[in-house]
Amino acid sequence: MSHLRIDGERLLGRLRALGGIGRDGDGRLVRLAASDADRAGRDAVAGWMREAGLEVMLDRIGNLFGVWDPGASDAAPLMLGSHIDTVIDAGIYDGCYGVLGGLEVVQTLREAGVAPARPIVVGAFTNEEGVRYAPDMMGSLVFAGGLGVEAALATVGTDGTVLGEELARIGHAGPHEPGFLRPHAYLELHVEQGPVLEREGVPIGAVENLQGISWQRVTIEGEANHAGTTPMSMRRDAGQAAARVVTFLRDRVSRSNAPTVATVGCMVFEPNAINVIPSRAVFTVDLRDPDEARLLAEEVALARYLEELAAAEGVAITVERLARFQPVTFDPSIVRAIEAAAAAHGLRCRRMTSGAGHDAQMMARVCPAAMIFVPSAGGISHNPREHTGLADLVAGANVLLDVARELAGAPG
Amino acid sequence: MSHLRIDGERLLGRLRALGGIGRDGDGRLVRLAASDADRAGRDAVAGWMREAGLEVMLDRIGNLFGVWDPGASDAAPLMLGSHIDTVIDAGIYDGCYGVLGGLEVVQTLREAGVAPARPIVVGAFTNEEGVRYAPDMMGSLVFAGGLGVEAALATVGTDGTVLGEELARIGHAGPHEPGFLRPHAYLELHVEQGPVLEREGVPIGAVENLQGISWQRVTIEGEANHAGTTPMSMRRDAGQAAARVVTFLRDRVSRSNAPTVATVGCMVFEPNAINVIPSRAVFTVDLRDPDEARLLAEEVALARYLEELAAAEGVAITVERLARFQPVTFDPSIVRAIEAAAAAHGLRCRRMTSGAGHDAQMMARVCPAAMIFVPSAGGISHNPREHTGLADLVAGANVLLDVARELAGAPG
Repeated sequence: MSHLRIDGERLLGRLRALGGIGRDGDGRLVRLAASDADRAGRDAVAGWMREAGLEVMLDRIGNLFGVWDPGASDAAPLMLGSHIDTVIDAGIYDGCYGVLGGLEVVQTLREAGVAPARPIVVGAFTNEEGVRYAPDMMGSLVFAGGLGVEAALATVGTDGTVLGEELARIGHAGPHEPGFLRPHAYLELHVEQGPVLEREGVPIGAVENLQGISWQRVTIEGEANHAGTTPMSMRRDAGQAAARVVTFLRDRVSRSNAPTVATVGCMVFEPNAINVIPSRAVFTVDLRDPDEARLLAEEVALARYLEELAAAEGVAITVERLARFQPVTFDPSIVRAIEAAAAAHGLRCRRMTSGAGHDAQMMARVCPAAMIFVPSAGGISHNPREHTGLADLVAGANVLLDVARELAGAPG
Repeated sequence: MSHLRIDGERLLGRLRALGGIGRDGDGRLVRLAASDADRAGRDAVAGWMREAGLEVMLDRIGNLFGVWDPGASDAAPLMLGSHIDTVIDAGIYDGCYGVLGGLEVVQTLREAGVAPARPIVVGAFTNEEGVRYAPDMMGSLVFAGGLGVEAALATVGTDGTVLGEELARIGHAGPHEPGFLRPHAYLELHVEQGPVLEREGVPIGAVENLQGISWQRVTIEGEANHAGTTPMSMRRDAGQAAARVVTFLRDRVSRSNAPTVATVGCMVFEPNAINVIPSRAVFTVDLRDPDEARLLAEEVALARYLEELAAAEGVAITVERLARFQPVTFDPSIVRAIEAAAAAHGLRCRRMTSGAGHDAQMMARVCPAAMIFVPSAGGISHNPREHTGLADLVAGANVLLDVARELAGAPG
């Protein structure tokens, strides 16, 4: 363990400064990808990168990189990254902590005169949130070769704008082809966005994998009838059938000891009248599991249940697949390095699964990658109440510092 | 059994003619209370009443009566009634069948030279549907003394109009105080609006009671959290809790042999996002039972379940009462007379419960009352596909004829 420590006040000051950029008339933080607010945030980050002695580079999809190459070596760089675009009415930590934490690490090393063998790059990927342009994690997906840059630039946003035109307009359509940097490894520091670390009193999460995600939309068609005159035995109640799916999913998942999670977040009844038996219910199913075989098994179990239910309730059920991502396994040696760094700092650490998607899952396609999590107060995220205390922010950045130093080959 | 029969073609012709009055630009039947369409319908009915030799009278709430008093007697009249206002995009039978069936009965008796001891009144009550002005069954409620006429006339409609002003505008605000007629008995012929008669192949329903109705709105408050990062055991899922209430109600009611029906017709999740655990679910519960003690027991069982559920799921549950009507028991001797008349015609008949509200439930407050049901194809009502075949329409009106003749003291 090195004696070096990051500057917590500087990190927090930048987080707060960036969090003040992109406030709307109601004081809400809204820094959607490639908007004027995003430009202002990008300009601030690029300015801090230059102050810290990094060379700022942009690729064609607008990914913003600060490169520190003290040895002018040809070695593949270590990349520390995340994103600075936000959801609507966001908190100030999601994504920004990873970018500014990476910058803080580089600046700390540089000011201490530590010269790593490899370049270190701080990256801010375009449009991770996917609020204005779909899909989310777009910048890292394009960087990793999972989506062509021309197709991505042609994406039409929810407001009718074209991403490529907006990036050009805000001056962040760069000259480099995405993927022009070939990282040796990728590290992402992030707030957990879930309740586990806080409830267990553990300050550091060594993220060893990322859940696979299965999103489906289920439509149940029954028969609208008078709620007073139709005997229970003669009903084909779409709402009743939908409720049975909701309880089936929870009961099945809770019975198992697996980390599977199942959520029905959207539910709509038609005609939605107090005295009419629902003719139609439409709802979403969000299934997640870090194990692909188990995720598949959950999907199959749901499909079987829907078949039985359709027969038992006299309803017609159709299923539409909305999204499907396989689980991602992060690099075991980096995960062990995170655990070792936490231990050296006297910080409790637990291995964990990321329940949310992150740029790291895209980068894991092209290089060894892992993530470091710090606690989120109340598990809250995508909300102005998103919060992580200064001690936890500092602890996470110091662990990032030590792991980065090791991966970049800097003298200890 | 008399040899007299109603004129089915005349009845059907008037049903179709009345059903053609009040079509909107899309061809939908929309004859809301006290509208121009309602005036046109009322004028047609009043014209047919006069043609049939009835004296047309209006009370202050716009209830329209055709009085036939061949003996100029002081005896309390028999009333045959229903309503001619409709829902939006209605069928042609609901209500109109009872009014025009009553008129057909009087005309048949008169043309046959039968002179009953009591006057017979054909009544069309104002605003039974309650679409434009609340509450529904308003005209009969006021007629029976359950609501003051001034309060009723001051009702502001969904379109901002005042009922009293609209009745005056269409020329149907009459001079008589509601209740000026004191019926000896009240009979209402109506389409079932449910599937029971059709599915059992029974043409005549002798309606012996009308369900009590309990309407509640339930609000469940949980906690919004990320669908990926929140373990199942740490969730307070308002949607999950709501689904459990839906299945509880059906399972409980279906296990019993009682005629109780329970319906969750409205359901709304918040924030209704695919990857967010619902923080709030709001839904309605419609409970109906012809027995007041059983209806109360169902309400108590639901309240107890909600208490247990709130504790088990870590959610807060509040309940708002929206409506509560006690069951109505119709007059047993009239119900027996309906059964006897059906038998005399060789028609199968079953006793049944009305699941919907009707003017008869208001009239039952002031005189012996009962209803005759005929089958509704597919149980469909409040819909342009509402249909009852000519044979069933004729059978119901002939049963009404015979029961009316008996109750009015006409020679057999």
